[in-house]
Amino acid sequence: MTQAALEFARPPADLLIEPQIRAALQEDLGRAGDITSELTIPAGQAATARLIARKPGCVAGLIAARIACRLVDPSLAFTVATADGSRVEAGTLIATIAGPARAILTAERVVLNFAGHLSGVATATAALADAVRGTGARIVCTRKTLPNLRILQKYAVRCGGGFNHRFGLDDAVLIKDNHIAAAGGIAPVLERVRAGLGHMAKIEIEVDTLAQLEEALSLGADTILLDNMTPEDLSRAVGLAKGRAVLEASGNVTLATVRAIAETGVDYISSGAITHSAANLDIGLDF
Amino acid sequence: MTQAALEFARPPADLLIEPQIRAALQEDLGRAGDITSELTIPAGQAATARLIARKPGCVAGLIAARIACRLVDPSLAFTVATADGSRVEAGTLIATIAGPARAILTAERVVLNFAGHLSGVATATAALADAVRGTGARIVCTRKTLPNLRILQKYAVRCGGGFNHRFGLDDAVLIKDNHIAAAGGIAPVLERVRAGLGHMAKIEIEVDTLAQLEEALSLGADTILLDNMTPEDLSRAVGLAKGRAVLEASGNVTLATVRAIAETGVDYISSGAITHSAANLDIGLDF
Amino acid sequence: MTQAALEFARPPADLLIEPQIRAALQEDLGRAGDITSELTIPAGQAATARLIARKPGCVAGLIAARIACRLVDPSLAFTVATADGSRVEAGTLIATIAGPARAILTAERVVLNFAGHLSGVATATAALADAVRGTGARIVCTRKTLPNLRILQKYAVRCGGGFNHRFGLDDAVLIKDNHIAAAGGIAPVLERVRAGLGHMAKIEIEVDTLAQLEEALSLGADTILLDNMTPEDLSRAVGLAKGRAVLEASGNVTLATVRAIAETGVDYISSGAITHSAANLDIGLDF
Amino acid sequence: MTQAALEFARPPADLLIEPQIRAALQEDLGRAGDITSELTIPAGQAATARLIARKPGCVAGLIAARIACRLVDPSLAFTVATADGSRVEAGTLIATIAGPARAILTAERVVLNFAGHLSGVATATAALADAVRGTGARIVCTRKTLPNLRILQKYAVRCGGGFNHRFGLDDAVLIKDNHIAAAGGIAPVLERVRAGLGHMAKIEIEVDTLAQLEEALSLGADTILLDNMTPEDLSRAVGLAKGRAVLEASGNVTLATVRAIAETGVDYISSGAITHSAANLDIGLDF
Amino acid sequence: MTQAALEFARPPADLLIEPQIRAALQEDLGRAGDITSELTIPAGQAATARLIARKPGCVAGLIAARIACRLVDPSLAFTVATADGSRVEAGTLIATIAGPARAILTAERVVLNFAGHLSGVATATAALADAVRGTGARIVCTRKTLPNLRILQKYAVRCGGGFNHRFGLDDAVLIKDNHIAAAGGIAPVLERVRAGLGHMAKIEIEVDTLAQLEEALSLGADTILLDNMTPEDLSRAVGLAKGRAVLEASGNVTLATVRAIAETGVDYISSGAITHSAANLDIGLDF
Amino acid sequence: MTQAALEFARPPADLLIEPQIRAALQEDLGRAGDITSELTIPAGQAATARLIARKPGCVAGLIAARIACRLVDPSLAFTVATADGSRVEAGTLIATIAGPARAILTAERVVLNFAGHLSGVATATAALADAVRGTGARIVCTRKTLPNLRILQKYAVRCGGGFNHRFGLDDAVLIKDNHIAAAGGIAPVLERVRAGLGHMAKIEIEVDTLAQLEEALSLGADTILLDNMTPEDLSRAVGLAKGRAVLEASGNVTLATVRAIAETGVDYISSGAITHSAANLDIGLDF
Repeated sequence: MTQAALEFARPPADLLIEPQIRAALQEDLGRAGDITSELTIPAGQAATARLIARKPGCVAGLIAARIACRLVDPSLAFTVATADGSRVEAGTLIATIAGPARAILTAERVVLNFAGHLSGVATATAALADAVRGTGARIVCTRKTLPNLRILQKYAVRCGGGFNHRFGLDDAVLIKDNHIAAAGGIAPVLERVRAGLGHMAKIEIEVDTLAQLEEALSLGADTILLDNMTPEDLSRAVGLAKGRAVLEASGNVTLATVRAIAETGVDYISSGAITHSAANLDIGLDF
Repeated sequence: MTQAALEFARPPADLLIEPQIRAALQEDLGRAGDITSELTIPAGQAATARLIARKPGCVAGLIAARIACRLVDPSLAFTVATADGSRVEAGTLIATIAGPARAILTAERVVLNFAGHLSGVATATAALADAVRGTGARIVCTRKTLPNLRILQKYAVRCGGGFNHRFGLDDAVLIKDNHIAAAGGIAPVLERVRAGLGHMAKIEIEVDTLAQLEEALSLGADTILLDNMTPEDLSRAVGLAKGRAVLEASGNVTLATVRAIAETGVDYISSGAITHSAANLDIGLDF
Repeated sequence: MTQAALEFARPPADLLIEPQIRAALQEDLGRAGDITSELTIPAGQAATARLIARKPGCVAGLIAARIACRLVDPSLAFTVATADGSRVEAGTLIATIAGPARAILTAERVVLNFAGHLSGVATATAALADAVRGTGARIVCTRKTLPNLRILQKYAVRCGGGFNHRFGLDDAVLIKDNHIAAAGGIAPVLERVRAGLGHMAKIEIEVDTLAQLEEALSLGADTILLDNMTPEDLSRAVGLAKGRAVLEASGNVTLATVRAIAETGVDYISSGAITHSAANLDIGLDF
Repeated sequence: MTQAALEFARPPADLLIEPQIRAALQEDLGRAGDITSELTIPAGQAATARLIARKPGCVAGLIAARIACRLVDPSLAFTVATADGSRVEAGTLIATIAGPARAILTAERVVLNFAGHLSGVATATAALADAVRGTGARIVCTRKTLPNLRILQKYAVRCGGGFNHRFGLDDAVLIKDNHIAAAGGIAPVLERVRAGLGHMAKIEIEVDTLAQLEEALSLGADTILLDNMTPEDLSRAVGLAKGRAVLEASGNVTLATVRAIAETGVDYISSGAITHSAANLDIGLDF
Repeated sequence: MTQAALEFARPPADLLIEPQIRAALQEDLGRAGDITSELTIPAGQAATARLIARKPGCVAGLIAARIACRLVDPSLAFTVATADGSRVEAGTLIATIAGPARAILTAERVVLNFAGHLSGVATATAALADAVRGTGARIVCTRKTLPNLRILQKYAVRCGGGFNHRFGLDDAVLIKDNHIAAAGGIAPVLERVRAGLGHMAKIEIEVDTLAQLEEALSLGADTILLDNMTPEDLSRAVGLAKGRAVLEASGNVTLATVRAIAETGVDYISSGAITHSAANLDIGLDF
Repeated sequence: MTQAALEFARPPADLLIEPQIRAALQEDLGRAGDITSELTIPAGQAATARLIARKPGCVAGLIAARIACRLVDPSLAFTVATADGSRVEAGTLIATIAGPARAILTAERVVLNFAGHLSGVATATAALADAVRGTGARIVCTRKTLPNLRILQKYAVRCGGGFNHRFGLDDAVLIKDNHIAAAGGIAPVLERVRAGLGHMAKIEIEVDTLAQLEEALSLGADTILLDNMTPEDLSRAVGLAKGRAVLEASGNVTLATVRAIAETGVDYISSGAITHSAANLDIGLDF
């Protein structure tokens, strides 16, 4: 990933994520703390540990790991070798942690849990992003995130070269079949939304058929979600839209299918799996 | 799973998990709330939605889904069809939610995020548990959990027929190589631990070789962790231990390997993947 | 306000505002609680109190008042006479609170602080909204809100017939002069934003001159903020835009100026004063 | 305001207000943070911004602004030019903020929201305090404060030269008509209060007539609240009291009326408007 | 204690103490909850348990015990037999808890920890209050309370027939020797305080000698703290004061000394031991 | 206490206790803060204060006192003279606090409340530990702790030379009479527990008779609680157990009885009084 791209990863502000990292440490320390290390490691002993990728992937979450170390012991020095968003090989040094050995061991599991999971999300995203390279399509995440990890998972998606969809129910409108049915059709649902909505929230509408697509296009929706369409229908949709709306494809998005979807000309391809089913990237902490 | 087994799943007390569920809803509702549903669904409209498994698996997390519904709107009726811990087929009805349509749509994503993820953990656990059935071995989770989801993930492991290892750094001693090295060997490390530890915390020690195992056995460790040993060495370890300590095997535990590991006679087999890399169980909400 | 309009006020979910209301009660009760009422009012004494408007205005905040009463004593009955969003005259009955006299007195000040302030915001908004009636312009609020009251103030703006701009720095892009300067002009700044932004966030750009407006229009900005322009320049801007972008006027918006601004044909007129300088609506609690 | 007077403004301890400032930043940053600045301002760019008064007034809230900057980025340097409590003219430099341009822009709105509102409270207070200068009367605030801003608003009142009444229901007794009625009169209500109250809480009683005043004086109330009396009756009340109790006047207190009230000889004049209806002081942030 | 007296105990509002009780339950339940009861008690088994005093004393804290039961399981029925403030003998039934046996066992320890400790505080207070009965002196607590238990301990003091001093540093002024020295004497310190303080906070000043007492009386302090004086000096102080100020005695207050102190005629006698050193009242939970 | 012993005291991580210390300061500062010191002590005045033991005892809680000082003012220098776990005489200097005089006075009460209480717990523990010196018995605490002080009280017990029992309901199994009765006896209760419990939690079972003890021993319980047995029966129990289980004695443990209990040969002696009824150690703060 280029430096310019890395910059777009845009890490969340510390004050947005520190509470979750502090909570994760409290979850692991419980009430009695790291009794093993306190009973076995001399208080003054120093050490240096190295975070090493055991498998190839895309790194994310070092910003969380750094904060975890600082919260356990401000004297720990956390030095990043490969910034969040970097591609790494098995064996690559990712970061080093130097300072009191007890503190390193106390922080170890939380550090690895954040770095392993978020790197897993970034790696899954990067695989899809790589697969569509050269088409105009962008990979985008969903709200199918793990509870209370949304800010960090959305960041990991950016680290992997993906883009972010809505962060919640509140920052954009996404009209689905139940909303259309309740309002009595595409035209009335869009009318209702526009009557009550300000000018700074986008409107996306999900359509199942090309007929619905034409209606939505004629009514000026900002974005149209094409759910579970075949590549053939997606191509037809792109032809119909002629750039009048942003088109997002969803459903059955895997490494095997994503290139064909991208080549239809849709603008965005959304995947829930990159956040709800990402496998951990294996990272070790070596002394 | 039998009723007796289901009972052992032991759901966590509401007051331990409600804060995480409330936070997950706030994460999704942001500041402006579910603007789409509020603008499109009439306030008085009622509906009934059905949680349906789209794939076979083991259900977990309905206790969280129920609380999420109550927090969004206490008038929502959440009726469980298949209790946490049940095996389901694709198409099985899991639960119904009845009440105001707006509230159902507002709660939908958080409900599915909890239920899908925790059922994924239970399903992954159940696959390993099934594979070792008939041996004496038990599947056990680790501290490789997703940040701030430990209580619920450990519950999902129990739903899947697995058992829980430590909940944190504080409720048992687990001595690893760094601790042994810092203390100067297995004998001194156990001596240090016993000098400072009360009588209600178990002591586990990780060994890499059969020689270390013999030393640990002779010194009376409660539990011994056999890390990354071959099935052959595990069998030898079982033979050496003769029941003097509980034996736990870890490392390279997959569906393909777990049966052979279990047949060596070890007591516990631990897996990080069931919590850190579980794929979401696909569950849909149909109106 | 019509019933249809009232519906668009869309009250925030209880779980988004209850923490602020609970905190406000704790702020008022301190450590020792309502010592005056506890020492002087017999425990069993019941009463009914009436919330009465002392001045004409637009009501907002009863949803907060109701929650405050419930938190002080779940046995208090709070009955709304004029729903949030209603216009009232001096002397109009707004709501009644019935139950233990002690609890009513304990809740009184927090109830009135929420209702008086939020009705003040709604009243100030309604005055501007009334003044532009019949033009196509909509009144919209800003991020110039009082700390930690944004959700409730934005709701009060809707109660007053206004619309909501961004809820925060994160749910839409608003490019101002410093951003343009840092990026090197309107074209490069829009290019940078689009390179990193997903498809569900709107982009607004602030322009000072008609030349900048033309550049922004040609580059396809969703919304253009016309800051501190004269009505004459606003009219010219509307003529230039020809509907290609949503136009928002800001700066020097008062009851005296807002009609002339609206008549230029701009789509939105934003006001910070309706949230940061709204005078309290005088509401009394009579026994 | 003199240096000695400034000292009496007594800023609240950081640990009492930091939670509110942190919450205000989280309210503005939402989940995705300041996406505009992150996408447009180069990470390394430094800047200096100046807080400038656009209108004359009395400054308050720089202590909150300083903490907001520190929470966004500890490397921001916040330099106060005119301390809280200072009178400023339009164009006066109030403070400078130097450091990363992104961080300044991210903090800007919260900084201005606190400084503008609290300076508004101080300015409104100072206007009343100026109007009564030379009489012995002091301006005092009430519990009619904006929810969860009481500590900071009470501080702003002190910055404006005013004094603080009760901070809550718990730190002093204020007996109103409902309490008197429930207890059966002034004598029994005071008896009940004294039977249960310790020696470190003051007792104030509200009276509507001079007859009630005489009764309260004869029974030794610490402070007597004279509500909505004419200046003539206030003068009579002062004559009756002869210094036996502190006298507080309330009701219909405006810039037009306050001098006449003060000249009656009352000790304190309380105003809800200085906290619940203070207009924002216009402060700009210039680069 | 009479019913009238019991009423003065004034329990704190639920919303002030529920957070501490919830936290105490979370402290005891940890992450895995009550594993013993969940593994051994059938889910449907009901029981009734009785809270019984094992020693004579004064009961306090049942309000906390009741909330603890409700938080563990809203279906638990908590029936008070002897209200907070009641004197009990060894063997007296204090309350019953009926409902699911598991829930009773889960709540048991927290229930007993609150009830035992707070009854201990009330019992220690009642012993001193009994000892001074018939004199005009009142027993009063201090700020020497156990961390984060102040609201409940102050309530327990009232249950025992005592009175409350300041709840914190903020609700009254207490001038000690360091403050006097810094300000340059009793006259200047009182002048400084009055210059900055509003009219609703009491002023107490600590004096060591009768000469200081005379100075403080002549300057009109509300309350004077006589620290560590002999009964003889306390008597002289009472004679000097002639009712011009409230007199509080502190230092060396025990069951053996308190009667003699009270008979000097002082108004209040303060004790830190009733809150910081109260022995638990032995209460059992019998099935 | 020796240096080696001191090390075993193992202070809890700052992030586990800082929230309680911050809350204790907020409890004492209320809303208005330390009004006395702010009104009387010049802002720039510096001072040095000395924490002095007024009575002999064992020190604990300086880690909390240090954090309290840092939270009030990071410029305060807290220098420990006698580390937590040290024995002190009346008059011994424990620590010094140097910095702004106002900040020292503001922190004083919270510092002393933590240090006095926790030193009281350590002192009570040390008295029992001294009394059993030379026997093999260890003093151990219980869950009879003061609400929300468990982490710090358990630490104070370690400072006093004691050991920790369970930290909560969740980290070990303790089977009491109700559990045995519900499960139908010792054999079935142990069977049920083992069927559902993982390998890292210890199992203790309470027995009332030697017959029960024999049954429990034969079934392999880790630890057996001998409740309220006479020293004679305890001796018989030790003889029966022959080291097959850890034996803990509880009930009627006082300074007068503990030596006789220890000499029976039991391994652990538990005391609730050291945490629920510890008298404050008198510590003063001298300028």
